[in-house]
Amino acid sequence: MNSFGKKLIITTFGESHGKAIGCTLDGVPAGLKIDEDFIQSELDRRKPGKSPLETGRKEDDKVEILSGVFEGVSTGTPIMMIIFNTNQKSRDYDSIKDLFRPSHADFTYYHKYGIRDYRGGGRSSARETASRVAGGAIAKLILKEMGIEIESGICEIDGISSKNIDFDYAKSSRMYALDKDIEPLQEEAILKAKSNHDSVGGVVLTTAKGVPIGLGEPLYYKLDAILADAMMSINASKAVEIGDGVLSTALKGSENNDPIYKNGFKSNHSGGILGGISNGDTIIVKTHFKPTPSIFKPQDTVTKDGEEVVCELKGRHDPCVAIRGTVVCEAMMALVLADMALLNMGSKIEHLQNIYKS
Amino acid sequence: MNSFGKKLIITTFGESHGKAIGCTLDGVPAGLKIDEDFIQSELDRRKPGKSPLETGRKEDDKVEILSGVFEGVSTGTPIMMIIFNTNQKSRDYDSIKDLFRPSHADFTYYHKYGIRDYRGGGRSSARETASRVAGGAIAKLILKEMGIEIESGICEIDGISSKNIDFDYAKSSRMYALDKDIEPLQEEAILKAKSNHDSVGGVVLTTAKGVPIGLGEPLYYKLDAILADAMMSINASKAVEIGDGVLSTALKGSENNDPIYKNGFKSNHSGGILGGISNGDTIIVKTHFKPTPSIFKPQDTVTKDGEEVVCELKGRHDPCVAIRGTVVCEAMMALVLADMALLNMGSKIEHLQNIYKS
Amino acid sequence: MNSFGKKLIITTFGESHGKAIGCTLDGVPAGLKIDEDFIQSELDRRKPGKSPLETGRKEDDKVEILSGVFEGVSTGTPIMMIIFNTNQKSRDYDSIKDLFRPSHADFTYYHKYGIRDYRGGGRSSARETASRVAGGAIAKLILKEMGIEIESGICEIDGISSKNIDFDYAKSSRMYALDKDIEPLQEEAILKAKSNHDSVGGVVLTTAKGVPIGLGEPLYYKLDAILADAMMSINASKAVEIGDGVLSTALKGSENNDPIYKNGFKSNHSGGILGGISNGDTIIVKTHFKPTPSIFKPQDTVTKDGEEVVCELKGRHDPCVAIRGTVVCEAMMALVLADMALLNMGSKIEHLQNIYKS
Amino acid sequence: MNSFGKKLIITTFGESHGKAIGCTLDGVPAGLKIDEDFIQSELDRRKPGKSPLETGRKEDDKVEILSGVFEGVSTGTPIMMIIFNTNQKSRDYDSIKDLFRPSHADFTYYHKYGIRDYRGGGRSSARETASRVAGGAIAKLILKEMGIEIESGICEIDGISSKNIDFDYAKSSRMYALDKDIEPLQEEAILKAKSNHDSVGGVVLTTAKGVPIGLGEPLYYKLDAILADAMMSINASKAVEIGDGVLSTALKGSENNDPIYKNGFKSNHSGGILGGISNGDTIIVKTHFKPTPSIFKPQDTVTKDGEEVVCELKGRHDPCVAIRGTVVCEAMMALVLADMALLNMGSKIEHLQNIYKS
Repeated sequence: MNSFGKKLIITTFGESHGKAIGCTLDGVPAGLKIDEDFIQSELDRRKPGKSPLETGRKEDDKVEILSGVFEGVSTGTPIMMIIFNTNQKSRDYDSIKDLFRPSHADFTYYHKYGIRDYRGGGRSSARETASRVAGGAIAKLILKEMGIEIESGICEIDGISSKNIDFDYAKSSRMYALDKDIEPLQEEAILKAKSNHDSVGGVVLTTAKGVPIGLGEPLYYKLDAILADAMMSINASKAVEIGDGVLSTALKGSENNDPIYKNGFKSNHSGGILGGISNGDTIIVKTHFKPTPSIFKPQDTVTKDGEEVVCELKGRHDPCVAIRGTVVCEAMMALVLADMALLNMGSKIEHLQNIYKS
Repeated sequence: MNSFGKKLIITTFGESHGKAIGCTLDGVPAGLKIDEDFIQSELDRRKPGKSPLETGRKEDDKVEILSGVFEGVSTGTPIMMIIFNTNQKSRDYDSIKDLFRPSHADFTYYHKYGIRDYRGGGRSSARETASRVAGGAIAKLILKEMGIEIESGICEIDGISSKNIDFDYAKSSRMYALDKDIEPLQEEAILKAKSNHDSVGGVVLTTAKGVPIGLGEPLYYKLDAILADAMMSINASKAVEIGDGVLSTALKGSENNDPIYKNGFKSNHSGGILGGISNGDTIIVKTHFKPTPSIFKPQDTVTKDGEEVVCELKGRHDPCVAIRGTVVCEAMMALVLADMALLNMGSKIEHLQNIYKS
Repeated sequence: MNSFGKKLIITTFGESHGKAIGCTLDGVPAGLKIDEDFIQSELDRRKPGKSPLETGRKEDDKVEILSGVFEGVSTGTPIMMIIFNTNQKSRDYDSIKDLFRPSHADFTYYHKYGIRDYRGGGRSSARETASRVAGGAIAKLILKEMGIEIESGICEIDGISSKNIDFDYAKSSRMYALDKDIEPLQEEAILKAKSNHDSVGGVVLTTAKGVPIGLGEPLYYKLDAILADAMMSINASKAVEIGDGVLSTALKGSENNDPIYKNGFKSNHSGGILGGISNGDTIIVKTHFKPTPSIFKPQDTVTKDGEEVVCELKGRHDPCVAIRGTVVCEAMMALVLADMALLNMGSKIEHLQNIYKS
Repeated sequence: MNSFGKKLIITTFGESHGKAIGCTLDGVPAGLKIDEDFIQSELDRRKPGKSPLETGRKEDDKVEILSGVFEGVSTGTPIMMIIFNTNQKSRDYDSIKDLFRPSHADFTYYHKYGIRDYRGGGRSSARETASRVAGGAIAKLILKEMGIEIESGICEIDGISSKNIDFDYAKSSRMYALDKDIEPLQEEAILKAKSNHDSVGGVVLTTAKGVPIGLGEPLYYKLDAILADAMMSINASKAVEIGDGVLSTALKGSENNDPIYKNGFKSNHSGGILGGISNGDTIIVKTHFKPTPSIFKPQDTVTKDGEEVVCELKGRHDPCVAIRGTVVCEAMMALVLADMALLNMGSKIEHLQNIYKS
């Protein structure tokens, strides 16, 4: 249950305040040049503490490859990547040891397992997403061989929507904003919530260009369904849209259908997926993140023994998890697309003849 | 890739105009009373032609159990259910044999597989969802043993939202409307689109009450992620929300968090799921359906050979797929919850002692 | 748990005396010509009653394809094949309804599930292997495209071993004997056991020629391990050997190692598999079948209530299940090899470039 | 493909001469006391260099738990265990860098992946089995809670069979011999082969006592089939027998059937499994290991470029891999049985009522 994918399979392990976190990535084709600097640079994008918009926690997040790579190249065997935990202050969590933080997973983990590693959320901490980013980085290297590029950015914060979508700008923005003009308002909302000991939600737009026609395995491993699974599995995610998503509900069929021309589709309401299979157009996914549940206002809760108490959180937390969620969304999309690219091999009998012809 | 679930596994087969459709449901615990009338009644809820709001096609959808049940009780072996196709008019589809209907799966199936069964969409037809409803009906029988009840209804049509949520009313409404007062407006929108040879979108609300705490297997088989996967795998679905979903993005943490009391949660913004695990509160999922792509206006498209042509559809189609989508959403939620209930067994070492103590 | 394979996945259903048995085969590449006569001919090879060496039961075993094939060609969607049960005499089993036949699955099914379909063994009946043969036939059609040929025969009966291996002879032998000269002794042993109301065991040799180098996915989906799984999953199988198998245990390394030459291997003690991966040489597997547990001598057993009674079986049973087991072994090997051929696609990054190059 | 199990899932990583090897064990029920000393003691049993019968290589094999355990108890999250490689002499392998050692996996890995980590066999090295032993140790802790005990020993070396089976004696024997009286002959055979620069094969007997009735999931996750898979996946294994195995082939049904009495079975030819499900009697499995392919005699082989050369191996190797294979067989059996115990929960509807009753 800690694995994702069918042919490219990531298995993650580790708790927020344990010795290490990491992942084993199984199914990477042999012969892929593994660019370790690129993998680290992806982790650096997710690393906290890069601006006042993020948590002030310092985490080095140095990733080390322990297997599966020989002389710089993948060997076809599982690639294990580890990130040792270094800057954990477990004592910060002594005060919440016996109570459940509202809208965190404390309550459900405790009841499901009868025990919980309370330090920093343990396994339920968003820290685990660093492992996904490591795995996603290698997935991106696979996709690069196919000419597929994944991009992301923030398209909404606290109800304030971007009007323009500029992925190039997002790359240089400290909040990965897609709209330069709206960014100041969005930043302001984040900082205001922060100073109010509160938090805000946000929406991440993730796209993939250059995806060949044919990825996605109907009927129960459809590209859109698995993207929804992937994005919804990220901490604090509460909704996933494909293409026009919730907006398509208010359109007529004649407005929402994408006419087809000789050279492709006239519009892309569908977000590049029809019948669960990529249609060659840009894949478009929106992921909605709720406001960070860790806020510094007093909140009603109960202890493990059912006693009603007031929860007063300490420590350092992101005022808006969507920001650092961007690179995680990219990683999950990369893992899904690379898995689908591998799975699609064999959809036609010609593929077999292609590979096995002598 | 035509299977769904890990412990309760449904595998479906069949095309719209083939000889039969059906499913094999594996993992049903032995000793469950199989109420065939109930299964048929669920299929009848999905059956087309019950009102002018639906397609005029007649499909009997008589389900027959071929295995796994002995003397009215499940035996623990796979339950195979079959629905023979009877009223198929394949000739209707001769005109679209060589072209791709816009926003249908024709284009992607053809390119993925190099071949396509064009009759009624073949495998990509929503007719396949009858198999899901059959499987979901048995999942509901399992859940009933646990005191879990699933309900659904239409909460939005063509941008017109319900204000009240009344599942009891929905049961008697011919469009499964949740709000009696808004229903006339929603019906009007559907019928107007229909008379304009167009279609509309809609949103289905699905809930589950009585779900015990602890269902969902983090981190990559989370309850919310798999519900998203399940709902997004339904034909024409374009977005999935859990709890407050897209609305939570515009809330502050202090507004969105659910305080905890001695007897449960004060609010349910989370939709009954925290950290991917059920928290004992009602599970709330919204599924957004795009407008039916089959419309009777002329549309630009291309043939298999790339020639640009005008597509003029004939036949009978639902003006709004969300309506008959309600029972399918219920079926998918039932399959997910029953699977999760089975998977959760063994989360604590006491479970083993419970089952194997003698 | 009623599915086998990872990319070519067979899911079977059905009980001996239910309405039908059959399988859904998922993952067949599109564009494969489906030769229905060949599929039926494989089932005919397994069909009982062809000689006095087999059970006298008559089973027509007419297979019908209900989905996944359009105009004679696979479409990439699941292929469902069904065999209706016609000649079942359930009354024969009334006498064993409440007791457990020794060395049958009656005892374990009853205790595992708390219920059992006692008619003809229900799900545990070897009748289910007809579904495997149907699926295996399509797997053979896939393998044929790759130039792989599977053969089998009886190499031992009641401890009497074949000296020569002649697959061509086996094809014409009514007991699929590999050695014409030993066959009379083997036949005699079977008939003698039969007239003594007893049964005998036997060994099936199955081979595959033309297998490309590289099939098998280490470390936990190795070709030899999955072949062992596949063969051991057949009713009455008690041992599986790869290559020299149990004999290699008594050899020295210098005797057992296969030296390598420019054009291949000098010997084939390994049975064509090294490190769980095919090496291009002939795949060799031996499957050992115990004597049929259904014998007509009185046997000690207990009833469901634990009362000690004498079991006196009636009806018609194979005196040696290995004979009709040959075609089942072939089917299982075909399913494994086709699955492995599909899985191996993507082992090298060049494969991706091969398939997705524009 | 580097994962094993369905509910208790072990995923291993690492190469012989990489930085580390290890495993992630997913699905361990929460609340299990994790005895680290016991885990290390199991690894010590597998560790080389304990006697002249084993390779002289020194490997510390210190195992460290990095996740999934909190305050000495499992938390229900994945347990990651790592063993850093310390004593690797990669230079020893420079001479075989460009050639394929006969009956090793060098040839097949190179052709499958187009690349190979030649140092010590890389991923194909039996060193990986240390990860299995670590995972198996935790599986044994689960089984202990159920009263299941696994034992093993050597029952044959170089064709010399044990007459008596004494697991207690095996525990103290340096070659895990089951028969004290035959042990000297078996030891002599090993040492003689060793001094001849050769190697010998051997057979491991593994049993499990106290297994409840009902483990094993027909039809394609049968207990015997998965045990065969598990044992055949161990390096150098070439045959697997359940119960009487190959001997049952020469018995009559009346000799091989196990009569049933009030208190169980009169005999155990079946090895404790009927219809793929445990019957409550002792589980009996034999695993046949070929002679170590690493021998110090000159052998014919080819280089990567196809040139015929003589292979002269250096270094230190086990003269008989079966010996250290005993604890690996135990680990695999433990992983299978614990997985099956977890999977079986839910076979009856009462189980659900048991766990979820309020």
